[in-house]
Amino acid sequence: MTTAPTRQTQIEVDQEVPLVRITREFDAPPEKVFRAHVDPALFAQWSGPRDLATRVEAWDARTGGEYRFVQTRGAEEYGFRGTFHEIRPGELIVQTFKFEGMPDGVALEKVRFEDLGNGRTRLVATSLVDSFADRDAFVASGMETGVVEGYEQLDEVLARL
Amino acid sequence: MTTAPTRQTQIEVDQEVPLVRITREFDAPPEKVFRAHVDPALFAQWSGPRDLATRVEAWDARTGGEYRFVQTRGAEEYGFRGTFHEIRPGELIVQTFKFEGMPDGVALEKVRFEDLGNGRTRLVATSLVDSFADRDAFVASGMETGVVEGYEQLDEVLARL
Repeated sequence: MTTAPTRQTQIEVDQEVPLVRITREFDAPPEKVFRAHVDPALFAQWSGPRDLATRVEAWDARTGGEYRFVQTRGAEEYGFRGTFHEIRPGELIVQTFKFEGMPDGVALEKVRFEDLGNGRTRLVATSLVDSFADRDAFVASGMETGVVEGYEQLDEVLARL
Repeated sequence: MTTAPTRQTQIEVDQEVPLVRITREFDAPPEKVFRAHVDPALFAQWSGPRDLATRVEAWDARTGGEYRFVQTRGAEEYGFRGTFHEIRPGELIVQTFKFEGMPDGVALEKVRFEDLGNGRTRLVATSLVDSFADRDAFVASGMETGVVEGYEQLDEVLARL
């Protein structure tokens, strides 16, 4: 499958602040892209690289709720957890994010769903940490594969909704 | 009452990242200073400037919990809310923080309790946002009075514990 230009995932490191910005367009309206982020059964189908399976352990997708999920490949397990600081349906998710393998790491993430019309959405996801070294280590850790393949899987989930 | 040099509140803006760092020492061990941060009845006694009263509306001080409180002065009301991303007793609180008067603002806060020995504690609180303009507006908003007076009130609370 070739990727249409509008479906390319753009990953940028901000020059001013220790933030990563991911931009991606989807052939589905904001309500559906949002739903695939807050429904745990849908989220488990697309999150992360293709060779990892996602198991949701806790999921309270409301302003003030918390979440935890585990990604597995054979015997390997990677846990992730955080809180949903704010959820505005179809519009915005603000959450904290922690990879449990780095107990002192925490990112503040914002996911915005922009209506492009014609049933299309631009997703802009930012991830903020408190040092450039941590931000750059995160980008160098191979997160790109997980993000790109995750959004390809999200295209497939959205096509079925 | 004169303030001993070790009880002075230091407020610094970071040069590299959009973060405010507050440092303050207390004549109480980390367990007590921590307790005054997570016990809602104690928190309400010291938080904010002297001329505002604090009313806690929601308070679930555990990793993954949420909080909301309101500060009042006569008919004026200011609401604040967020989530407790992580709580390590006597050691660390990581939380999100939002002033409801600025609906799109959110800060990622870390409060560290460092044991100085002899029943004393150094508190280091950082507040991270995603732009220098927002950070500088926060510092210019008069937060210093609330922080300084709040920690003076915390001295008084700790003396009674």
